[in-house]
Amino acid sequence: MLLSLDMASKTPIYMQIRDQVVLGIAGGELAPGEKLPTIRALAGQCGVNMMTVNKAYALLKQEGYITADRRGGTVVSGSPGGPALSGKYSAALKVIAAEARLAGMGEDEFAALCREAYNNGGGNNG
Amino acid sequence: MLLSLDMASKTPIYMQIRDQVVLGIAGGELAPGEKLPTIRALAGQCGVNMMTVNKAYALLKQEGYITADRRGGTVVSGSPGGPALSGKYSAALKVIAAEARLAGMGEDEFAALCREAYNNGGGNNG
Repeated sequence: MLLSLDMASKTPIYMQIRDQVVLGIAGGELAPGEKLPTIRALAGQCGVNMMTVNKAYALLKQEGYITADRRGGTVVSGSPGGPALSGKYSAALKVIAAEARLAGMGEDEFAALCREAYNNGGGNNG
Repeated sequence: MLLSLDMASKTPIYMQIRDQVVLGIAGGELAPGEKLPTIRALAGQCGVNMMTVNKAYALLKQEGYITADRRGGTVVSGSPGGPALSGKYSAALKVIAAEARLAGMGEDEFAALCREAYNNGGGNNG
């Protein structure tokens, strides 16, 4: 798993790590049962603090995307359900939709963009 | 303009303020030319630091949603275009779409949710 982190972004690093793992799972790059790098390894690879990676992993666990493996380590959940699109996601979607509307994008165009995002999620590399 | 800020949220307060102003503009609650509260007033009303509100306003200005009024103060831009849906927004949309897919939501259902967000953006109060 190769993470590309944007150190100048307004999105906190741990959220960027979390988002990229979610994209990786959705895109099939990370298969259920697959082992994630250790916190130490990922922190070293990305050049970030271990606490940052720990925060990302804790959030992913809480959301059900990954689980602690009994033999140590962390694996992608068997059926990584994740929480259903709760208020939080709808709120984020509302903001994006508002931005699109203010940028002059029509409803159909926006819906098409959403479908594209749905079908290409995590498929950056292919 | 009534802002509801979630102090326990993972989203920084200045981004919450920024998002709610964008939603307010898209929802017609904030009309072009309408004056925004001063930084001091809004900070007092929300119980947050003035620097936090300043950061939100600076971002909104940079994005073109609001402009500095010559007589002092800040107003909603004439035609608040905002940046077109650039990489940043598509990236956020991709993450939401990935989450929806992992939560078992189908493409059509997701597109419907997107259309709903588009049509109800900022219309929380109606």
